[in-house]
Amino acid sequence: MTGTRFDVLGVGNAIVDVLARVDDAFVDTHGLAKDAMLLIDEERAEQLYAAMPPGQEISGGSAANSLAGIASLGARGAYIGKVAEDQLGEVFAHDLRAAGVHYDTAPLFGGPATARCLIAVPPDARRAMNTFLGASALINEDDIDPGLVKASSVTFLEGYLFDRPEAKTAFVRAAEIAQANDRRVALTLSDIFCVERHRASFRQLVKNHIDVLFANEAELKSLYELDDFDAALAAVRAETRVAAVTRSEKGAVIVSGDAEARIPAQEVGQVVDTTGAGDLFAAGFLAAYARGMSLDACGRLGVIAASEIISHMGARPQTGLQALAARQGLELPDAEA
Amino acid sequence: MTGTRFDVLGVGNAIVDVLARVDDAFVDTHGLAKDAMLLIDEERAEQLYAAMPPGQEISGGSAANSLAGIASLGARGAYIGKVAEDQLGEVFAHDLRAAGVHYDTAPLFGGPATARCLIAVPPDARRAMNTFLGASALINEDDIDPGLVKASSVTFLEGYLFDRPEAKTAFVRAAEIAQANDRRVALTLSDIFCVERHRASFRQLVKNHIDVLFANEAELKSLYELDDFDAALAAVRAETRVAAVTRSEKGAVIVSGDAEARIPAQEVGQVVDTTGAGDLFAAGFLAAYARGMSLDACGRLGVIAASEIISHMGARPQTGLQALAARQGLELPDAEA
Repeated sequence: MTGTRFDVLGVGNAIVDVLARVDDAFVDTHGLAKDAMLLIDEERAEQLYAAMPPGQEISGGSAANSLAGIASLGARGAYIGKVAEDQLGEVFAHDLRAAGVHYDTAPLFGGPATARCLIAVPPDARRAMNTFLGASALINEDDIDPGLVKASSVTFLEGYLFDRPEAKTAFVRAAEIAQANDRRVALTLSDIFCVERHRASFRQLVKNHIDVLFANEAELKSLYELDDFDAALAAVRAETRVAAVTRSEKGAVIVSGDAEARIPAQEVGQVVDTTGAGDLFAAGFLAAYARGMSLDACGRLGVIAASEIISHMGARPQTGLQALAARQGLELPDAEA
Repeated sequence: MTGTRFDVLGVGNAIVDVLARVDDAFVDTHGLAKDAMLLIDEERAEQLYAAMPPGQEISGGSAANSLAGIASLGARGAYIGKVAEDQLGEVFAHDLRAAGVHYDTAPLFGGPATARCLIAVPPDARRAMNTFLGASALINEDDIDPGLVKASSVTFLEGYLFDRPEAKTAFVRAAEIAQANDRRVALTLSDIFCVERHRASFRQLVKNHIDVLFANEAELKSLYELDDFDAALAAVRAETRVAAVTRSEKGAVIVSGDAEARIPAQEVGQVVDTTGAGDLFAAGFLAAYARGMSLDACGRLGVIAASEIISHMGARPQTGLQALAARQGLELPDAEA
């Protein structure tokens, strides 16, 4: 799109991840859910943290991970999300800015601490996420800078934000500003439980505001309450400009009007930690989409970015994704002036 | 030794590491020193952190890393070190306790923040450490619980503590209590710059209080101001019960009275980050030493532990070291009742 300062603006929960390797007994004993995100309160967060093995702290947050990926791919990104004025908040802000993402949301004073996601990574790499939302949920309409939304080709929203009413209002506000300025709006459904919590709201949002929808197979089926994947795909095709559906080792399916692209998954040496796989697929897809590339190229760049992230602990790239993609023949065209 | 509750008690600077991969230009531009530790003040810490790429936070601190390794080897460890009452202090305490180390030093209220070490890891894995000591340097004599010292076969002190007078006093106090109770005292010289800062004090300490000294080749030569390695080895042999000297890819030399053991280095697939190599050598050595194993076994266990730590980012074990050692035929005997 012409005249934009940013390719993608992300809006999401600003979270620092606490990752630890566990065994399957730990997952069972503590009632964790693999491949999913559970919301937990502060008391539960303290209990679970006390039980967890030694960990490592790495900045996270679904949309923030995507934006770090977008910057690593050489595209221009900005982010809106709320941390507290504390050490983990500083870590989050540092890591995002150091990744090359524009980030200037005012931190929260005198409220809850910066959000933490306690992530248990079992031997099969299918992480169980447990989020204490803290300051991140206190994002509100005032945090949505209309100038940033107008300056961005795509505004990308994470479904997790729907878990708090103020955040949801901020979320819809961002979508409205984008639409009023002829910018695109993208949404990720985030998580099967998140879809179940907010199905009706999501259905309405998708129909009225969303140009590009990200979902995995289970989330898409749950959104439309359809057991048949093709039926769910037909439903979303009728409601959004583009839908990109990830299917783990089966790769991704992208539909847009009558067009369709199927992207195979990539071989990964060893899957170490699946945290961030969906976030980085969205990163690759949106970087290419904002630069006007084909659906096929969008999907392929998504798969390349996702493959890097599952090869190590944490949901932020550890390799320059732009060079990685170039080695596979994918380069972003220049942004239009 | 009979009747001890712990094999090893560590006393050191309680630090959280902030690790980031950098290129060599970053090391040059910011005047960092590979293979070494520079002390920095808060202002410099903020400047350097702002310039650093996205990082990951992993609990560190030289003696604390050793104790985490000792616990991972199946030995019984305790630790004394000072954090602040803040988020990184909680992370430090959690990780050490979750590793199985006894840790109950009271945190500092209303003073500087928990210590941070900004660690730049260049492509050749030779990390450049930059430490803001914060709360860790405010450890004092009152933090040394005589009961813990008496209950431990070996009290292990890190040379870095000499950088603050209060800490140095605490350090000597711990050594005196141990000696008065017929326990052993071990010291690591920590770093070549640390030896240069405190050579006279270290010489006196080694002569009067130290049973087991850890040093690398450069530190040992600097301690005695001797260019010849064999001459330095002869000097330390005359002054301590045991000296264990590491020589990177040349392995380790251990001397004790007339006895000597030479341990070859282990093949490591890829050296990712050398942070903690010395700490984990000491861990393996001391776990075996406290259980009365031979010098050769002490050295071999040290090399096994050090080899694991340099194969990944961060100075805390990511693999159960006890099982790793067992696969190489090394098992700790039971502690004496």
